Amino acid sequence: MKLWGGRFSKDTDQLVEGFTASISFDQRLAEEDIAGSMAHCRMLGKQGIISPEETEAILAGLAEVQEEIRRGELTFSLALEDIHMHVEKRLTEIIGPAGGKLHTARSRNDQVALDMHLYVKKEILAVSSLIASLQQAIVEVASDNLEVIMPGYTHLQRAQPVLFSHHLLAYFWMLERDRERFMDAYKRADWFPLGAGALAGTTFPIDREMVAGELGFSRLYENSLDAVSDRDFVAEFHFAATLLMVHLSRLSEDLILWSTAEFGFAVLDDAFTTGSSMMPQKKNPDVAELVRGKTGRVLGSLVGLLTMLKGLPLAYNKDMQEDKEGLFDTVDTLKMSLTLYAAMLRTLKINEERMYAAVAGDFASATDLADYLVRKGLPFREAHAVVGGLVGRCVAEGRQLTDLTAGEMQEASPLLGAEALPLLLPEACVAARQARGGTAREAVVEQLKRARELLEL
Amino acid sequence: MKLWGGRFSKDTDQLVEGFTASISFDQRLAEEDIAGSMAHCRMLGKQGIISPEETEAILAGLAEVQEEIRRGELTFSLALEDIHMHVEKRLTEIIGPAGGKLHTARSRNDQVALDMHLYVKKEILAVSSLIASLQQAIVEVASDNLEVIMPGYTHLQRAQPVLFSHHLLAYFWMLERDRERFMDAYKRADWFPLGAGALAGTTFPIDREMVAGELGFSRLYENSLDAVSDRDFVAEFHFAATLLMVHLSRLSEDLILWSTAEFGFAVLDDAFTTGSSMMPQKKNPDVAELVRGKTGRVLGSLVGLLTMLKGLPLAYNKDMQEDKEGLFDTVDTLKMSLTLYAAMLRTLKINEERMYAAVAGDFASATDLADYLVRKGLPFREAHAVVGGLVGRCVAEGRQLTDLTAGEMQEASPLLGAEALPLLLPEACVAARQARGGTAREAVVEQLKRARELLEL
Amino acid sequence: MKLWGGRFSKDTDQLVEGFTASISFDQRLAEEDIAGSMAHCRMLGKQGIISPEETEAILAGLAEVQEEIRRGELTFSLALEDIHMHVEKRLTEIIGPAGGKLHTARSRNDQVALDMHLYVKKEILAVSSLIASLQQAIVEVASDNLEVIMPGYTHLQRAQPVLFSHHLLAYFWMLERDRERFMDAYKRADWFPLGAGALAGTTFPIDREMVAGELGFSRLYENSLDAVSDRDFVAEFHFAATLLMVHLSRLSEDLILWSTAEFGFAVLDDAFTTGSSMMPQKKNPDVAELVRGKTGRVLGSLVGLLTMLKGLPLAYNKDMQEDKEGLFDTVDTLKMSLTLYAAMLRTLKINEERMYAAVAGDFASATDLADYLVRKGLPFREAHAVVGGLVGRCVAEGRQLTDLTAGEMQEASPLLGAEALPLLLPEACVAARQARGGTAREAVVEQLKRARELLEL
Amino acid sequence: MKLWGGRFSKDTDQLVEGFTASISFDQRLAEEDIAGSMAHCRMLGKQGIISPEETEAILAGLAEVQEEIRRGELTFSLALEDIHMHVEKRLTEIIGPAGGKLHTARSRNDQVALDMHLYVKKEILAVSSLIASLQQAIVEVASDNLEVIMPGYTHLQRAQPVLFSHHLLAYFWMLERDRERFMDAYKRADWFPLGAGALAGTTFPIDREMVAGELGFSRLYENSLDAVSDRDFVAEFHFAATLLMVHLSRLSEDLILWSTAEFGFAVLDDAFTTGSSMMPQKKNPDVAELVRGKTGRVLGSLVGLLTMLKGLPLAYNKDMQEDKEGLFDTVDTLKMSLTLYAAMLRTLKINEERMYAAVAGDFASATDLADYLVRKGLPFREAHAVVGGLVGRCVAEGRQLTDLTAGEMQEASPLLGAEALPLLLPEACVAARQARGGTAREAVVEQLKRARELLEL
Repeated sequence: MKLWGGRFSKDTDQLVEGFTASISFDQRLAEEDIAGSMAHCRMLGKQGIISPEETEAILAGLAEVQEEIRRGELTFSLALEDIHMHVEKRLTEIIGPAGGKLHTARSRNDQVALDMHLYVKKEILAVSSLIASLQQAIVEVASDNLEVIMPGYTHLQRAQPVLFSHHLLAYFWMLERDRERFMDAYKRADWFPLGAGALAGTTFPIDREMVAGELGFSRLYENSLDAVSDRDFVAEFHFAATLLMVHLSRLSEDLILWSTAEFGFAVLDDAFTTGSSMMPQKKNPDVAELVRGKTGRVLGSLVGLLTMLKGLPLAYNKDMQEDKEGLFDTVDTLKMSLTLYAAMLRTLKINEERMYAAVAGDFASATDLADYLVRKGLPFREAHAVVGGLVGRCVAEGRQLTDLTAGEMQEASPLLGAEALPLLLPEACVAARQARGGTAREAVVEQLKRARELLEL
Repeated sequence: MKLWGGRFSKDTDQLVEGFTASISFDQRLAEEDIAGSMAHCRMLGKQGIISPEETEAILAGLAEVQEEIRRGELTFSLALEDIHMHVEKRLTEIIGPAGGKLHTARSRNDQVALDMHLYVKKEILAVSSLIASLQQAIVEVASDNLEVIMPGYTHLQRAQPVLFSHHLLAYFWMLERDRERFMDAYKRADWFPLGAGALAGTTFPIDREMVAGELGFSRLYENSLDAVSDRDFVAEFHFAATLLMVHLSRLSEDLILWSTAEFGFAVLDDAFTTGSSMMPQKKNPDVAELVRGKTGRVLGSLVGLLTMLKGLPLAYNKDMQEDKEGLFDTVDTLKMSLTLYAAMLRTLKINEERMYAAVAGDFASATDLADYLVRKGLPFREAHAVVGGLVGRCVAEGRQLTDLTAGEMQEASPLLGAEALPLLLPEACVAARQARGGTAREAVVEQLKRARELLEL
Repeated sequence: MKLWGGRFSKDTDQLVEGFTASISFDQRLAEEDIAGSMAHCRMLGKQGIISPEETEAILAGLAEVQEEIRRGELTFSLALEDIHMHVEKRLTEIIGPAGGKLHTARSRNDQVALDMHLYVKKEILAVSSLIASLQQAIVEVASDNLEVIMPGYTHLQRAQPVLFSHHLLAYFWMLERDRERFMDAYKRADWFPLGAGALAGTTFPIDREMVAGELGFSRLYENSLDAVSDRDFVAEFHFAATLLMVHLSRLSEDLILWSTAEFGFAVLDDAFTTGSSMMPQKKNPDVAELVRGKTGRVLGSLVGLLTMLKGLPLAYNKDMQEDKEGLFDTVDTLKMSLTLYAAMLRTLKINEERMYAAVAGDFASATDLADYLVRKGLPFREAHAVVGGLVGRCVAEGRQLTDLTAGEMQEASPLLGAEALPLLLPEACVAARQARGGTAREAVVEQLKRARELLEL
Repeated sequence: MKLWGGRFSKDTDQLVEGFTASISFDQRLAEEDIAGSMAHCRMLGKQGIISPEETEAILAGLAEVQEEIRRGELTFSLALEDIHMHVEKRLTEIIGPAGGKLHTARSRNDQVALDMHLYVKKEILAVSSLIASLQQAIVEVASDNLEVIMPGYTHLQRAQPVLFSHHLLAYFWMLERDRERFMDAYKRADWFPLGAGALAGTTFPIDREMVAGELGFSRLYENSLDAVSDRDFVAEFHFAATLLMVHLSRLSEDLILWSTAEFGFAVLDDAFTTGSSMMPQKKNPDVAELVRGKTGRVLGSLVGLLTMLKGLPLAYNKDMQEDKEGLFDTVDTLKMSLTLYAAMLRTLKINEERMYAAVAGDFASATDLADYLVRKGLPFREAHAVVGGLVGRCVAEGRQLTDLTAGEMQEASPLLGAEALPLLLPEACVAARQARGGTAREAVVEQLKRARELLEL
C-alpha cells in the first residue's frame, strides 16, 4: 500500500509505478534530502511541534540512513517512488513510528523544491570553480606564448595579424561572463521554499527563517504557490550551461581547425586524441568534437524544460518531475568538458612557424596601409579604395603587397612610397594596435593583468 | 594499448577514455551489431575474401558472444570504447587471431551506421504497432459510447454539441498520421550503409547487395561519404516522435481537464492515478501529466540532434556519437506512453450526465439558430447578428436561449418562431451535422468504419 | 560600386545583394547608429585624429541625417546594404568627402556591435518598466480582493483553499525574478565594444573610455576579438524573454481556465476578448491564448540564436547578422504582451461566489483534518491514512467531509470528534496558514507590503 | 462593429485589435483564400444552398476582389482582422448583401485550414523543384570535374583520397532525401478540411468531395475536430525545411573551409562574395555563412510551432494563429538559399592542384597499405598495427610513407616490399574503391547515372 493510499480502492498499475517513480534518478538528491530533513527536524523540535526525544531520534535515524546511502547499502525500489519516501521509510524502520513525524508541516512538493535548490546551488559553485580553472589555464598558456603571431580571422578569412595570446584570451572573457551568469543564477537558486507545504503553507507554527539560515539561504519565497511551482532557477542553470557550451563549441571549432593538416597551427597531445579502427594514420580531435556536439544536447535539455513549463496552470503539476534528468546530465557534461579543456589546452603544442608563415604570406596588413593613407590626410573611404585596388592587382598577378615596388605604390597614390613598406610586417601591424583591448603586446599584457585580478591570482 | 594505437606514443588520458567511450549506452545495439557482423562475415566468405574455415569460426564465435551478452555475462569496460570493440575483442579471445579478419572491408563508421539503421527500423515497427494498439483502444471506447453528447470546444469555450466518440476519434486520425509518418521515415532508415568503409568505400571485392538483402534492406546508399555521415533517419524518427508526443500532450490536456472537479466529465481509474503525501483526498492524473511533460524532453532531443548536425563538414565527425542517447530515451518514452494510454483509455469512466448537463445549459446551439435563419433566406452574416443579439440579451438576463418566448424570438427577427425551439436541443444539433466527417451519429459510424478498415480490424 | 569593392572585378549578384543586405531590418537601429557615430566623432576630434572643422561638419551632418530619418525622408536601398552605409553615404552627400573620415578607427564589426548593445540596453529598461507596471496591476487587483477564497490546485485537482490574492501574487514573484534577470542581463549588455575595429583593435590613438562614458557604458571589452564576436547579451535577453513568456503562458492558462463555463471563476472584459464568425454566442479569450502561443515563438528565437552561434570560429562571421530579426520580434512581443496583460487584469471580473462554492463543496480541507490529528499526537503518516479512509468513504457514498457525523468520525479515530468540524471550513483552512509566505490574510497582507516595497510604491 | 459583434456590449480594445489581427501577414494567403471561396461557392450553388444568381454574383465578385488584390488596390486594415474578412467585406461592397451568403456552411476555422493546406501544397512543389535544380547543378559540376582528386575527411583530418565529384555528390543524396521528405509531407498536406465548420461539421447538405476534387485534394479529413485543429502538415514542412537547411549548412561549412587561404581548394565567384568596410583585401563567403546561420532560424520556427501546439486541448485555439509567420519566413529562406546555391556552385572555381597536393603530401593512403597486408594474409587488426607503427615513425622523422625504403618496410613486416609503393599513390587509392557507392571513377560514373535517372534528366 502506498503511503498516500488511504482513499484508493485499487493498486497502482505496475507500469504506472515504473513510469511515475523518480527514484531511478532522484536518488542523486539523497544528500540534499537528508540535509534538508535534518534542518527541518531541528526546527520542528525547537518550535515544540515534536518533542525533544522525537527530535533526537529522528536526527540520529537520519544520520544512519545517510551513512547507509553513502555506503551504497540502501536498496531502492520503484514501489517507494522517490528519494523522499525511501529516506522516510528507512527512518521509520530504524526508529519506529516517530519517523512518521518528520513529515509534519511539510509536503513532498516543498521538500523536492528544497532538494533541487540545494543541489543547484552546490553545482553552480562547482561549475564556477571549474570555469575559473579553465580561465587560469588560458591565462597560463597566453602568458607563455606572448611572442607568437597568427592570423586573426573574420569570415574564416585571414583579416589582420594578432597575437596568439590575444586570440586565446578572447575565450577568457566569454568564460568570465559565464561565471558571472552562473553567479547571477545563484541568487535566484538561493530562495528558500520549505514551509510552502503542498501549495498553501502550513497550519503548524514553523520558523522558516531558522531552517533557511541553517541551510545557508539568503532569501525566502514570499508566496507558497510560487515556492512549489517555480523552476526558474533550473531553467536559468540550463541557459547559463548552454551559453557556456556554445563558447566551448567555438573554442572546439578553433582547435579542430588548427589541428587540420591545412592549418597546422597546433597539435593536440596524444592523450587528448583518439585513433581510427581503419585508418592507421589518423589522430582525431575527439574531445573537441564531442564537446562541440554536446552543445546540442545541453541546448536540448533547456528547450525540453521550457517547453515542459509552457502553459502549466498553478501550482505544482507532475510534469515538473521532468526537471531532473536533463539537469543531472547537463551538470555531468559541464564538469567533464571544463575539466578536459583545461588539461587539453595546457598540453597543446603551438606551431609558431606555421602561424607566422600564414600571416606573412597574405594581405593581412592591408588595413594598416589604408590607415597610413588616412594619417596622410586621405578620407578612410578613399584610402580603402586605393588599397583595395592594389590588393586586386596583386591577387591577379599572384604577388604579395610586400612585392610591390615604390613606383607601383606611388602609381596607386602619390601619398604612398617606400617608407610605407615596414608597416606591412606582421610585427608592425600587431604593435600598432595599442589601444585598450587591442592586440599589441603591451595591451595584451595589460589584458592579462586584468584577467589575473579577476581570478585573484 | 588501443586497437588503433599504432601511431600513438602516449596513452589516452583516463578522463578522455570515459568521455569518448560510448559503451555505457551503445551496448543497447549489441543484437544489431552481431546480426550485421554475421551477414558481413558470410559475404566475406562467399566472396573469397576470407576462407570458409574462417567464416565458420567467426560465425560460431559471434553466436557465442551473442549468447554471452544475452545472458548478461559479457563485462563492459570503458577501455574498449564501444560495442563493436567489445564484440570483436571477445570474438578474438574465443576463436583466436582469425577474429581480427572480421573487420576486413569495414570501418566502425559504416558499422555503427548499420547498427543504427537496423535499430531504428526495428523500433519504428515496434512504435507503429503500439500506435495501432492505441488507435484500437480509441475505436473501442468510441464504439461503446455512441450515445454520449458533450460540448465541443474552441478556445476552451463551449462551441457546439458533439458526440463524445467524435471528440475521441479526432485523436485516431492524429495517430493515423503519426503511423504514416513513421512508415515514411522507415523508407529512409531502410538505406543500407555497409561497404562505405571509413568514408570512401573499400578496396575489397565486396557484395553489398548480398548483405543488404540478407538484413532486409530495400535500398543501398549510393555514396560512401553520405552513408557514414547521414543521420537524417535518426532526426526523422525524433520528429515523428515529437509530433506523436504533441498529440498525446493534447489528449493529456483533455483528460486532465475532464478529471477536474470543475469539468467532472470523466474519472481515471485508480490504477492510473496517484495520491498525495500530504493531502489525503487527492487523486492525481500523474500519467497524463507526465506524458504532457515528456513532450518537452522528446522535443529537446530533436533539437539536440539537429543542432549537433548543424555546420558539420563531411564526412563522419565524432559529434555524431551524440546521436544515440537521446534516441534510446525517446524510444523508451514513446513505448511506455503509448502502452499506458491504451490501458488508461480503456479503463476511463465517462460521466455522461455531467457532459450532457454541460452542453444543455449553455449557448452551444446558437449556430444552429443562425443556420435556421439562413435556410429561411437571411444571409449568414445577418443571421449571425440576430442570434448574437439574442445571446447577448440572455447573458445579460441570466437566461438560456431555450428560455426565450416565441414573442421574444420574433422580436429579434420575424423569421424566428416557436418552431425553431427544437433545433436548440443538443440531440438535434448533433443529428444535423451529417456531412462526411461531421458529428452526427451516422457520420461517426461511417468514420468508425473507415478507422477500422485502416487498422484492418 | 560597393564601398568595399576595391579588389573586386565583378558586381555582386542581384539576389546576393538582397540576401546579404540587412537594411530592411537594421534600419531600426538608426538612432543607436547615429548616437554612436556622434560620440565616436567627438572622440576623433578630441584626439586630433580629425580636425575641429571636420568634427563640426560631421556632427552637423549626422544631426541632419538623424532628422531626415526621423521624418521618414531617407530612402533605404538594398545596394547600400545596411544602416551604417546609409548614414555614412548620406552624410557624405551632405558634407562632402570629409564624411568619409567618420569611419576612421572603426569597422562595421565594432560599429554594429555598439548599435546592438545600445539597443538591447534601451529595451531592457523599457521591458523592465513594463514588467513593473504589470506587477503593480497585480498588487492592485490582489489588494482589492482580499476577501475572496478559491481552491488552490495541484495537478489541476482542488488541493487546499487559498486566497485569490495569494494565487494572483504568485505571478508577482515570477515577474520579480524576471525583472532581476533582465537587470542582470543589462550588466553584460553594458560592455562597450567600440575600438575593436574589425577584430584586432585600431592603429589610431583613440580614447575608448571617453566614448564609453559619453554613451553611458560602465565597462569596456578588454579583448577586441571578443568585442566583435560576442552575442551573449542578445542570447541572454532572449532567455529572460522566454522565461517571462513562460510565466505569462501560465497566467494565460489560469485565465483561460477561469473563463470557461466549467470553472466560471472570472469574466474577461469584452474589450479583451473576441467573437466567432460562425458561433454567435462565443466570447473567446484570444489575448490570453495568443500570449500563450507566442511563448513558442520567443523560445524559437532563442533556439535560433544559440544554434546559429554553435561552432562558429573566431571572430566575426556573417552568420551573426541573424542576431537581429528575432530580437526585434521578441522585443515587440514582450512589450505588447506586458501592456495588454496589465490592462486585462485590471478589468477582470472575479466571480467570488463560484470560487467559494468550488472550494466549499469539496475535500480541500482534508489536510487540515490530518494536521488536527497530528496535533493530537498521531504521526503524520497515520493521520494521513485515517483521513484518506474518510475521504474514500465519502467519495463512495457521494458525501462531503462536513456531512460526517461525530460518530462516524470517532469510528475512524478516537481522536476525532465534533470539535474538528469547524476546521473544515474554507475560512478556517485559509486562516490557519499563517507562516510567512502562507495564504492566511495576515501573511498575504505582509506579502503585499513586501511587494509594494520592491516596486517602491 | 465587428462581424462577430452581436453579443458584445463594448468595442475591442485598440491594442487588442492590433495584437489579435493577422491581416499584416495572412494577406499572403489571398490567392488561396479566394480560390477556396470560389470552389465553396460553386458547391453551394450546385447543392441548391444558394441560388444560381447568387452563385454567379459571388463568383464574379470574388474575381473582382482577386484582381484588386493582384493590382495592390485593396487596402488592408487591422479592424477587419484577417484576409477572410477583407475578402468578404469587399465582396459585399461589390455585390451587396448576397456576399454574406458565401460564409454559409463555413467557419473561419475550416476556411483558414483550407488556405494553409493550399499554400503548403503549393510551396512544397515549389521547394521540391528548387531542390531538383540544385541537385542538377551538383550533377553538372560533378560531371565536369571527374579527374579531380582531393582528400576525404573524417574528424576534419585527411582520411583517404576521394574524387571531388564523389564528395560533392554526397550532397545530391541528402537533397534527394529532402525531396522525398517534402513529397511525403505533401501527402498529409493533401487532406481536405473544408466542411468541418467551426469544429463539428455543418447543418447544410454540402458536398465535400466536390470541393476537394475541384481544388485538387486527394483525401478528406474524416473528423471535423481534427480538420480544424490539425497543424501537423505545417510542422512537417518545418521539419523537412530544417533538415534541408542542416544539409546546406554542412555544404556551407565545406565551401567556407575550401575558400580559406589554408585550404585554398576553391574560389567563390566575386558575384557571390562580399568585401569588408575596413579591410581592403577581404573577400568573404557571406552567402555560405548566412545560409549556415539561417539554419538556426528555421529550426527556431520548428521549435516555436511544436511548443505552441504542446498541451492545447481540442479543438481550435487562438494560439494556432501563430502557425503562419514562421512558415512564410521559412518558405522565403528555403527558396532564396536553394536558388543562390545552385548559382554559386556553378560558378565555383576548383583549385585542382591544391587539392591534389593536399592528398599527396599526407598519409591518406595508409589504409590501402593495411588492406595490402590483409590480402597477404594478415588479420586486419595486425595489419593496422604494422602500418600505424610506420606512420608513427614517419611523423616523428618528418617523412612521408612514400619516403620509406623497401628495407624499412620489410623491417616493419616481411610481407611488405617495394611492390607496395604504387598503392600509395592517390590515384591508386581512388581507383581501388570500386564497390557500389565507392569513390573509384567507374563507381562515381555509375552514381551519376543513377542521380540523373532520379532527376529524369
